[in-house]
Amino acid sequence: WRPLFRRSFSASSRWSVIRDISALEPRLSPRYQECRDGDLLCLEWPAPPRNILLVKKDGEPSVTESLVEFASHITSTYPSISLVLEPHTAAEVHQTLSTPVYTSTADEQLPVAVHEKVDLVVTFGGDGTILRAASFFATCYNVPPVLSFSMGTLGFLSEWKFAEYKRAFREVYMSGAGVGDRTMVLDCPRPTSSDERVESEMGPTGWSSIRGKSMGSTRGARILMRNRLKLGVFTRDGAPVHPNDGSRLPAVQAEHPGIYAMNEVLIHRGKEPHLAIVDIFVGGRFLTEAVADGVIISTPTGSTAYSLSSGGSIVHPLVPSLLLTPICARSLSFRPLVLPTSTPVTLRLSEKNRGRELEVSIDGINIGRGMTVGMEVRVWDEEMRRGENDWHGGVPCVMRRTIGGEAHEGWVGGLNGLLKFNHPFGEEP
Amino acid sequence: WRPLFRRSFSASSRWSVIRDISALEPRLSPRYQECRDGDLLCLEWPAPPRNILLVKKDGEPSVTESLVEFASHITSTYPSISLVLEPHTAAEVHQTLSTPVYTSTADEQLPVAVHEKVDLVVTFGGDGTILRAASFFATCYNVPPVLSFSMGTLGFLSEWKFAEYKRAFREVYMSGAGVGDRTMVLDCPRPTSSDERVESEMGPTGWSSIRGKSMGSTRGARILMRNRLKLGVFTRDGAPVHPNDGSRLPAVQAEHPGIYAMNEVLIHRGKEPHLAIVDIFVGGRFLTEAVADGVIISTPTGSTAYSLSSGGSIVHPLVPSLLLTPICARSLSFRPLVLPTSTPVTLRLSEKNRGRELEVSIDGINIGRGMTVGMEVRVWDEEMRRGENDWHGGVPCVMRRTIGGEAHEGWVGGLNGLLKFNHPFGEEP
Amino acid sequence: WRPLFRRSFSASSRWSVIRDISALEPRLSPRYQECRDGDLLCLEWPAPPRNILLVKKDGEPSVTESLVEFASHITSTYPSISLVLEPHTAAEVHQTLSTPVYTSTADEQLPVAVHEKVDLVVTFGGDGTILRAASFFATCYNVPPVLSFSMGTLGFLSEWKFAEYKRAFREVYMSGAGVGDRTMVLDCPRPTSSDERVESEMGPTGWSSIRGKSMGSTRGARILMRNRLKLGVFTRDGAPVHPNDGSRLPAVQAEHPGIYAMNEVLIHRGKEPHLAIVDIFVGGRFLTEAVADGVIISTPTGSTAYSLSSGGSIVHPLVPSLLLTPICARSLSFRPLVLPTSTPVTLRLSEKNRGRELEVSIDGINIGRGMTVGMEVRVWDEEMRRGENDWHGGVPCVMRRTIGGEAHEGWVGGLNGLLKFNHPFGEEP
Amino acid sequence: WRPLFRRSFSASSRWSVIRDISALEPRLSPRYQECRDGDLLCLEWPAPPRNILLVKKDGEPSVTESLVEFASHITSTYPSISLVLEPHTAAEVHQTLSTPVYTSTADEQLPVAVHEKVDLVVTFGGDGTILRAASFFATCYNVPPVLSFSMGTLGFLSEWKFAEYKRAFREVYMSGAGVGDRTMVLDCPRPTSSDERVESEMGPTGWSSIRGKSMGSTRGARILMRNRLKLGVFTRDGAPVHPNDGSRLPAVQAEHPGIYAMNEVLIHRGKEPHLAIVDIFVGGRFLTEAVADGVIISTPTGSTAYSLSSGGSIVHPLVPSLLLTPICARSLSFRPLVLPTSTPVTLRLSEKNRGRELEVSIDGINIGRGMTVGMEVRVWDEEMRRGENDWHGGVPCVMRRTIGGEAHEGWVGGLNGLLKFNHPFGEEP
Ligand SMILES: NC(=O)C1=CN([C@@H]2O[C@H](COP(=O)(O)OP(=O)(O)OC[C@H]3O[C@@H](n4cnc5c(N)ncnc54)[C@H](O)[C@@H]3O)[C@@H](O)[C@H]2O)C=CC1
Ligand SMILES: NC(=O)C1=CN([C@@H]2O[C@H](COP(=O)(O)OP(=O)(O)OC[C@H]3O[C@@H](n4cnc5c(N)ncnc54)[C@H](O)[C@@H]3O)[C@@H](O)[C@H]2O)C=CC1
Ligand SMILES: NC(=O)C1=CN([C@@H]2O[C@H](COP(=O)(O)OP(=O)(O)OC[C@H]3O[C@@H](n4cnc5c(N)ncnc54)[C@H](O)[C@@H]3O)[C@@H](O)[C@H]2O)C=CC1
Ligand SMILES: NC(=O)C1=CN([C@@H]2O[C@H](COP(=O)(O)OP(=O)(O)OC[C@H]3O[C@@H](n4cnc5c(N)ncnc54)[C@H](O)[C@@H]3O)[C@@H](O)[C@H]2O)C=CC1
Repeated sequence: WRPLFRRSFSASSRWSVIRDISALEPRLSPRYQECRDGDLLCLEWPAPPRNILLVKKDGEPSVTESLVEFASHITSTYPSISLVLEPHTAAEVHQTLSTPVYTSTADEQLPVAVHEKVDLVVTFGGDGTILRAASFFATCYNVPPVLSFSMGTLGFLSEWKFAEYKRAFREVYMSGAGVGDRTMVLDCPRPTSSDERVESEMGPTGWSSIRGKSMGSTRGARILMRNRLKLGVFTRDGAPVHPNDGSRLPAVQAEHPGIYAMNEVLIHRGKEPHLAIVDIFVGGRFLTEAVADGVIISTPTGSTAYSLSSGGSIVHPLVPSLLLTPICARSLSFRPLVLPTSTPVTLRLSEKNRGRELEVSIDGINIGRGMTVGMEVRVWDEEMRRGENDWHGGVPCVMRRTIGGEAHEGWVGGLNGLLKFNHPFGEEP
Repeated sequence: WRPLFRRSFSASSRWSVIRDISALEPRLSPRYQECRDGDLLCLEWPAPPRNILLVKKDGEPSVTESLVEFASHITSTYPSISLVLEPHTAAEVHQTLSTPVYTSTADEQLPVAVHEKVDLVVTFGGDGTILRAASFFATCYNVPPVLSFSMGTLGFLSEWKFAEYKRAFREVYMSGAGVGDRTMVLDCPRPTSSDERVESEMGPTGWSSIRGKSMGSTRGARILMRNRLKLGVFTRDGAPVHPNDGSRLPAVQAEHPGIYAMNEVLIHRGKEPHLAIVDIFVGGRFLTEAVADGVIISTPTGSTAYSLSSGGSIVHPLVPSLLLTPICARSLSFRPLVLPTSTPVTLRLSEKNRGRELEVSIDGINIGRGMTVGMEVRVWDEEMRRGENDWHGGVPCVMRRTIGGEAHEGWVGGLNGLLKFNHPFGEEP
Repeated sequence: WRPLFRRSFSASSRWSVIRDISALEPRLSPRYQECRDGDLLCLEWPAPPRNILLVKKDGEPSVTESLVEFASHITSTYPSISLVLEPHTAAEVHQTLSTPVYTSTADEQLPVAVHEKVDLVVTFGGDGTILRAASFFATCYNVPPVLSFSMGTLGFLSEWKFAEYKRAFREVYMSGAGVGDRTMVLDCPRPTSSDERVESEMGPTGWSSIRGKSMGSTRGARILMRNRLKLGVFTRDGAPVHPNDGSRLPAVQAEHPGIYAMNEVLIHRGKEPHLAIVDIFVGGRFLTEAVADGVIISTPTGSTAYSLSSGGSIVHPLVPSLLLTPICARSLSFRPLVLPTSTPVTLRLSEKNRGRELEVSIDGINIGRGMTVGMEVRVWDEEMRRGENDWHGGVPCVMRRTIGGEAHEGWVGGLNGLLKFNHPFGEEP
Repeated sequence: WRPLFRRSFSASSRWSVIRDISALEPRLSPRYQECRDGDLLCLEWPAPPRNILLVKKDGEPSVTESLVEFASHITSTYPSISLVLEPHTAAEVHQTLSTPVYTSTADEQLPVAVHEKVDLVVTFGGDGTILRAASFFATCYNVPPVLSFSMGTLGFLSEWKFAEYKRAFREVYMSGAGVGDRTMVLDCPRPTSSDERVESEMGPTGWSSIRGKSMGSTRGARILMRNRLKLGVFTRDGAPVHPNDGSRLPAVQAEHPGIYAMNEVLIHRGKEPHLAIVDIFVGGRFLTEAVADGVIISTPTGSTAYSLSSGGSIVHPLVPSLLLTPICARSLSFRPLVLPTSTPVTLRLSEKNRGRELEVSIDGINIGRGMTVGMEVRVWDEEMRRGENDWHGGVPCVMRRTIGGEAHEGWVGGLNGLLKFNHPFGEEP
């Protein structure tokens, strides 16, 4: 018996509505400033974010409840915010909410339109949920910032504990409220202590009238820009293959053959009990023929995922690099490689495979079509270029603030706490 | 244009016949004696072998030609020998042979009856062909000796070069011709130098009248007894599953739930892009929960196969042991284990897998039925016991004789020549 | 302030004596029977053990106290037992004991005479202390049983917690009290519950009159016979080198060039910053040239020591095998090997090393003399042969009894508890 | 009997001279331009280089001969060039040369003055010789370009074959001869085919009058800027230790506590048979306690040296990163890490080591003083900053030009040719 859940359900059911995402205002793109005090970037909204996509792990009632709790808080505290949900999530929870939710009303999947509308993504789940959220933007150049809450299952990428959600959201929301706003804060004594009234006290233009809430630009949310890799799958004749498998990966436009991966792309023998044979080209030059279960091309973010299980090194997310890691290579001398991000890498299914079909997986999703002899997976640089404040291509992840504001904090903590890195011998106390 | 092949084809096509294997004499079981001069065993036939199963790699015409050349030599030189072939091979080659061949005339596969008939197995191909030949005896306690010729593709298990086939076969055939025979050899000067007349000069009782051919019991063929592992697949309720997949593995009798593997048995996620979760029990005790692509239980023979690709150590075939090697475990601290052969090991599909199906492979063949939650693979000791001259359970492989007669010779050669073990740095000359 | 310690010190100081080990009765050798219920052996004394060597970790006062507590218990409960100590330990503790202790009164080290006198060894410390105790028998064919107590520092080899010492010792002491004794136990109601009176109630011939103490031969102490490796160090001319380094390893007799190792023997570059070049011969045949920090030849026991750190597999102590593991080989393709125990292995310092000296370590002790070019380390089979009840060559380690009595119990426990084998990801509860 | 060598010896002995390096003109610093056609930089001299340091592998007469051949070619073809040698090399070869050589006439080692004088370094030997040459600049911010010839022993870092020396040198020498020079080349037909006359036809201002020799700025020598790591060794009290060991590493000035390493810095147990305990701090935060033979902090260049032998990944030299690789860690879960170059890393000898001394090695040289408890090795960013054409801190290595001019060429070639990366199984042809 869960009173809060029940109550909000019955109270709001009368006027809850599902609306189409096309009705939303266009997306706001934040800027990412270099901070003086560390390796992370500083989030800076031009105006308060309005359209927020919530993505949750499926099949776990407690996660759904948390999403509803979060959504209720947002809609009551920040009334100008609109919530976007996946169609099946919208159907599952809209009646428990007192405000309309936005989704695709025509399709069972989120449309590419999310690229044009979503200001911020919030995830509830583990690493898989973040990967899932990122996959909605797999053909999108600019990914909105991602605020991630771990729910029960621990994740290496999920930053925040759900218990911190009010503070975490406010921190992200307020990032960018500038000097003028802070001045006002100093002038006007803060009249309320309630989190629930944050936005109700703001004027119509956004943050300017919030009292006591601005944290100044130096206190804006910290962003770890995780670089992705851009890839394409090509037929033997060089024609791009649309990796749309009818389930999750978005349809790729004809003029845009690339798709972005956050963890990795890989070729694998799948169900086939025999070894796969893959020709690997690095920088246009033939490197080697891999005879193996498969081959992984991974980002530094993915270095703690499948690549790690296959013997790859752990690479810090701020090292601009690609990892090339074989899966169970039938060779004593195939060592994982770490390459510059600018290196184009190609995996071609060798003619020696004789008609078998291999699986291609992107961030844990098999693409709809198997790979046949002569087909290629190609990876290019994502070009996460750094003109002054000009970042794109990566996944901007909101990090927990720690003393020092260093990107190392969370990462070192994750290595020790989650991966049990160099776990000391000896019995537990 | 290959004249020999053509000629034998046309000349013999008139009277070539396919007969049923049931017509053959019952099998002769050799003894395996310990040798003074090394770790290998000495093959000793009670009487000359009569029924010989030839197994070849499919799809390569040159291998078929070699099999025909070998078969012609055997039938002309050793007229009392009968050749057994797989049904499809019998169909393919019988017209090129001048003597009848034996096979299953009723079924498309070799029947379990081979267990009762075959004295010796000869393979033409690579390691896969030896595994295939051994799989015909996967439910048989006593495997006949295996003489293997590598054909083009190099193999780690294949011992002999095809060019040596006359000498190799004679050595195996004569193993066991004892002291009396040798005496005769000394008495009677050897009247012929032709290999083609070996058996024509023997009396009706076998070797006794062969002149100049006996090599004495100390010169009999050397056998490396490769131990297998005995396994069963069980449903959640403990009922044995027949791993017959309609293709290669023989039907298992109800009263005999076990099946033998020469390389390994393994569980693998297959096409499923998510990690498998497998509970591992060693000696009846819970060892660990593996979260991985899969788990391998391997023989020392299999230590140079998939286990090696997965990071396992190389174990000499004479170390009585089982290897437990994870495939891409999502753990920093899962190190391969080497266990005594007497250790029962169980792999159980954890309840946490939630309804997915995993693949079970035995020596590179997926069994027909996937594994579901709660199902188990169990491995027991093969009990390749060593009462004096009492060996069974293993696969007796005929080794090339080298100076010293040590089991290390071929193995060390294979490590260096084939696996490129510790291949020195520096450019090739 | 530790009253017990102080008191025993002052009370006994008057009559405590150090005697020479030569005064002791000759050694009793137990038999090791195969048990029906598992892989371990059953200890069986011909008569109760009399001379017990106690070895402790140095430099830790709390360990010394435990040794004194143990010694006091033994001397008061089992008055016919004599205690043997290392000279420095004897000097340190004899005044706190109320009975004489035996040691070498002439030398600062234990003499080879321990081989002729010691029935049982008891260690107080970690793995290093067991290795140290075993090293006293490094030139001895038959090692007495070793009962090991872990003290604070956890060890993989140390079996017993010190808190269990009374039960543990009684179990070892009583092992071998046979059927007749048990009959008596059944006849005579057990008159005392006190551990302290064990032996006082026995008749002069040993166990026969102990009441309620016999556990029958099926309940005797369980022994894990850990095989050692036998090695010799030879000059370029083939002359054996005495590895006596003036500190711990016993002097080797001229006629007995071998020395036994419990963990491993290894060659290492030591302080030399350049790579060592070592030629490796297996079974008399050249295997490979290792260019590396060093090369380890390890027992299965040592597989969880240095070999593990160098990438070797974990080998169960009952797998009769040798491990050949390179230390930081400058090669991508040098994989650890597991060889049959019967395989002679030779490491020869290559001529290419040009005059540098390498370190040779046995169980963590550098031998006094460095290795120069052309010198060899040779390893032979220990021949821990298994005639019925005829075991020798190994180190008989007393195991904690667990349900099932399997050798796997402690080992699996050690993997999980100590080595953190496959330690699951995720935060500690 | 080597006639050429003899002849030059006798002919020139009369007027060969050793001069002090202080007599030389001050150093010319080149610029390094980004190239359009690849990842490598373009060398651009402001004027032709004048002072060239030749470093050779010692103890190999054939290497000395090659150095003499090279030196003779340079001095006769480019008369304005002065040769700098190490004192012992100068003593060894000056009599075979017809021009004076420069060295330290006061000391047995090259003085820090080389930093002020040397325009270009040329090495004759293997990787060790390049490391040795780089070590002369271990306290120098700007390393001159390094042209390296491999001599017999193959190296991963050595780029050029000695046979190519004339072309290689000319390419480096001419790099920077600009458009005007090229125009002249077009105007004036090239009058001579002899390499020997290159400079004799130039006017006094350098390249401007060379005919047919300019290759234009797009054809200038290609430079791979290998980043180094900057490190300091500190006492327990935080005072910098001068790692000068009296042999090779240059004395560090008091005000400049840092020293640069090209491959790695490492702590190692050395001769001590027990494990070292090292506390590791990353970005100021405690990462872990390593219990190991040692710990390596390596550059990407060093990723194919000791780090590789210790299980590290292979990192391309253009990935801006540091590798943290343990040597034989007593842990199942210590995986190598790849960190951003900007991460400060500290290795501190733990108090648990109890008074033992550890070795510190920099690029294969032990520093004079061992490390005691509490001492630290600290590594900072080298700050190989990239203002437009503003590079410093790295080692500028002259690469062989290959089609495409990509940095991958040589590297991929080295992986395959030298390291036998993924060397295919199967017998050599
Ligand atoms: N043998 C292996 O290690 C395999 C790993 N994977 C990985 O799973 C990923 C997909 O994740 P799910 O959909 O959750 O599948 P899943 O349910 O199979 O779980 C994958 C596991 O990897 C963790 N993970 C995912 N990304 C990570 C990262 N960047 N760093 C550290 N841990 C990470 C997750 O927390 C989870 O524990 C793929 O991108 C692939 O990297 C997929 C198949 C096999
Ligand atoms: N990633 C990997 O390394 C994989 C390995 N395999 C192995 O392949 C075996 C089946 O062989 P095929 O039917 O020929 O399949 P295949 O055509 O996939 O070839 C397997 C390769 O392994 C070699 N091989 C097989 N047994 C060996 C042994 N005992 N020692 C050394 N090399 C050996 C073969 O010569 C061949 O090169 C399985 O038993 C399994 O061990 C199967 C799947 C993946
Ligand atoms: N990098 C490494 O891993 C090194 C390991 N060693 C090992 O240390 C042994 C000597 O031990 P100590 O004198 O205590 O030296 P130590 O003080 O250097 O400690 C060695 C560590 O290894 C453990 N250990 C020893 N034998 C073991 C076994 N058979 N299984 C599991 N753990 C074991 C000990 O408990 C201790 O934690 C040598 O025989 C060698 O195997 C020695 C040097 C370096
Ligand atoms: N176990 C090992 O692998 C050890 C490696 N070393 C390495 O040796 C280096 C010193 O070299 P030397 O004075 O020649 O000592 P050395 O005579 O011990 O040879 C080291 C070997 O490493 C090679 N090497 C050096 N730097 C390399 C690089 N960056 N990439 C690929 N190969 C490389 C050399 O060609 C040579 O084969 C050290 O910086 C260290 O990295 C030093 C000690 C042990």
